[in-house]
Amino acid sequence: MEGLQVYHEEYGAAAEVVKTRREEWPALKPYQIRVAIYAAPINPADINMLEGSYLLQPPLPARLGNEAVGVVEDLGDQVEGIYSDDHVIIPFQNKQFWEGLWAEYVVLDYREVLVVPKQISMPQAAMLSVNPLTAYAMLTQFQELNKGEWVVQNLANSGVGRWVIYLAKKLGYKTCNIVRSDASVASLKALGADEVIVYSDHMSQAIKEVAGYARLGLNGVGGNSAKQVAKAIKADGSLVTYGAMGREQMMIGNALLIYRNVSFYGFNRSRWIAQTPREKVCRMYKEIFEMLVADPFTIPVEKTYELGDAPAAVAHAMQSGRQGKILFKMGFF
Amino acid sequence: MEGLQVYHEEYGAAAEVVKTRREEWPALKPYQIRVAIYAAPINPADINMLEGSYLLQPPLPARLGNEAVGVVEDLGDQVEGIYSDDHVIIPFQNKQFWEGLWAEYVVLDYREVLVVPKQISMPQAAMLSVNPLTAYAMLTQFQELNKGEWVVQNLANSGVGRWVIYLAKKLGYKTCNIVRSDASVASLKALGADEVIVYSDHMSQAIKEVAGYARLGLNGVGGNSAKQVAKAIKADGSLVTYGAMGREQMMIGNALLIYRNVSFYGFNRSRWIAQTPREKVCRMYKEIFEMLVADPFTIPVEKTYELGDAPAAVAHAMQSGRQGKILFKMGFF
Repeated sequence: MEGLQVYHEEYGAAAEVVKTRREEWPALKPYQIRVAIYAAPINPADINMLEGSYLLQPPLPARLGNEAVGVVEDLGDQVEGIYSDDHVIIPFQNKQFWEGLWAEYVVLDYREVLVVPKQISMPQAAMLSVNPLTAYAMLTQFQELNKGEWVVQNLANSGVGRWVIYLAKKLGYKTCNIVRSDASVASLKALGADEVIVYSDHMSQAIKEVAGYARLGLNGVGGNSAKQVAKAIKADGSLVTYGAMGREQMMIGNALLIYRNVSFYGFNRSRWIAQTPREKVCRMYKEIFEMLVADPFTIPVEKTYELGDAPAAVAHAMQSGRQGKILFKMGFF
Repeated sequence: MEGLQVYHEEYGAAAEVVKTRREEWPALKPYQIRVAIYAAPINPADINMLEGSYLLQPPLPARLGNEAVGVVEDLGDQVEGIYSDDHVIIPFQNKQFWEGLWAEYVVLDYREVLVVPKQISMPQAAMLSVNPLTAYAMLTQFQELNKGEWVVQNLANSGVGRWVIYLAKKLGYKTCNIVRSDASVASLKALGADEVIVYSDHMSQAIKEVAGYARLGLNGVGGNSAKQVAKAIKADGSLVTYGAMGREQMMIGNALLIYRNVSFYGFNRSRWIAQTPREKVCRMYKEIFEMLVADPFTIPVEKTYELGDAPAAVAHAMQSGRQGKILFKMGFF
């Protein structure tokens, strides 16, 4: 049998180099399962891979897609603990193990998937591999915050930003959130954001007035936005950078480093997973799933596309000012 | 009795605001000792204090001088373990405890001094409070290096830079040293530097060719020099900033943070001491003293001045291209 998949043969303008093809399903070997992909989002990492600038670049031609949710359809020999009809995500992608997930089906080692509770909707489950763990790890692995302490973040309206707001609330921290426009203030407040500040060139003062000095800052933008967040961070605090949406380098004042001893870290989820014991990573995902089942939380989706419309979908995902994620819906159901 | 001391009443151009005065010696209270200062260097921190830009700024008028060596002359009641004629340094200066040491005598709590072996020459002992601990802590507290691994540093011709070369050799690490001119290459090689590179705008390639990618970089300059060092640092490595001689902010490429996970730390010795158990700090100083007794090591001194010539001494210390430290010699001996 054949299935449709999205791939690329060269690096370049993302919407131009992205292509689709039909491929034969391989027979299952021991330990393998076949997963019918239901939905998969387009993330900045996918765009970077198309452009050839990502951390992880499999040899070309390469199938695309960093995260997805699917339904287990077929089990090879010696598969344990995974059953037909389970909903699974594939969070352990890394340089050694890479399977592009923008496809109607994928064949995977069963040890590379995690079962997701069926109470979680499929479009939401499709976005569970990357952002929630990024947010959870950044909130817990760099500073031991006390309940009631503030976390400052830019790019607060992104998937990671929204997860930070949701998880910080669960952990008892307060969030001071930087956004680019008034349009997203109300929706972040509804989600539980304690404060929302609209970006301005000298906003560090405004952040300090709201959040005192926070001990943890999260930066997905770079450039002056990162600098303003850093200036509002307390002595001995940390700024963790997970993205560079603004594509500007970070400028760090020397006094901040030497006199205030603020530390600057980077965070990349696949890198972090590869260096962290698997049980710890699984435990964190399980905690996230439990929170979600108890208190559902929705990342907005702006539009879904068929796999066959990959160029249009990628072009849409690259537009700024979107109000939600772009998802592929594979239409098996 | 009276003694001469150096102080300032206002912030400004360092050589203009620095002054001298004579002051009465206070009587010793319990736990106090009187120390006749023998020699004291002029450090960048002293200049910054005169300009009002240092981490630690005592209320004005303030006596100056961050480090010195002296001889114990008089003991108050309840002093233990310190004896007349001991050579002492005063390494624990911080915001809570500050005594300017550019003076003919100082009266101190005996618990704030460390006895230095008499085999160490007094001018060298005068420079033992700040730079060696900075170098030792930076080499050991941020990355656990293996023997044979490389450390990259700029400002290699400074006091800290020379201590890094000396201590790295003792610890079994190799050093790749960046200097501003050919003039200092030979003297750093003689000191044990494994490689010396003269600064150029795109030197990261040259550093990588020499040192592979190092896991630890030390930065006393900032600006492009820091950037070039950072670019030559291995994945999961660290760049530690202790100074900003170039007075330019640091630019950090986002890929370095997010994809290579290089961490950026600041180091300030007094801050670090205040947060570290006193026994640990004392143990580190003792180890440094033992190394020095076993294998003497000399920081070059360009010129010594009398305390009364403080403005000329400070002006000299601010000149670039010096071949050694500027020291006050109090002339008690």
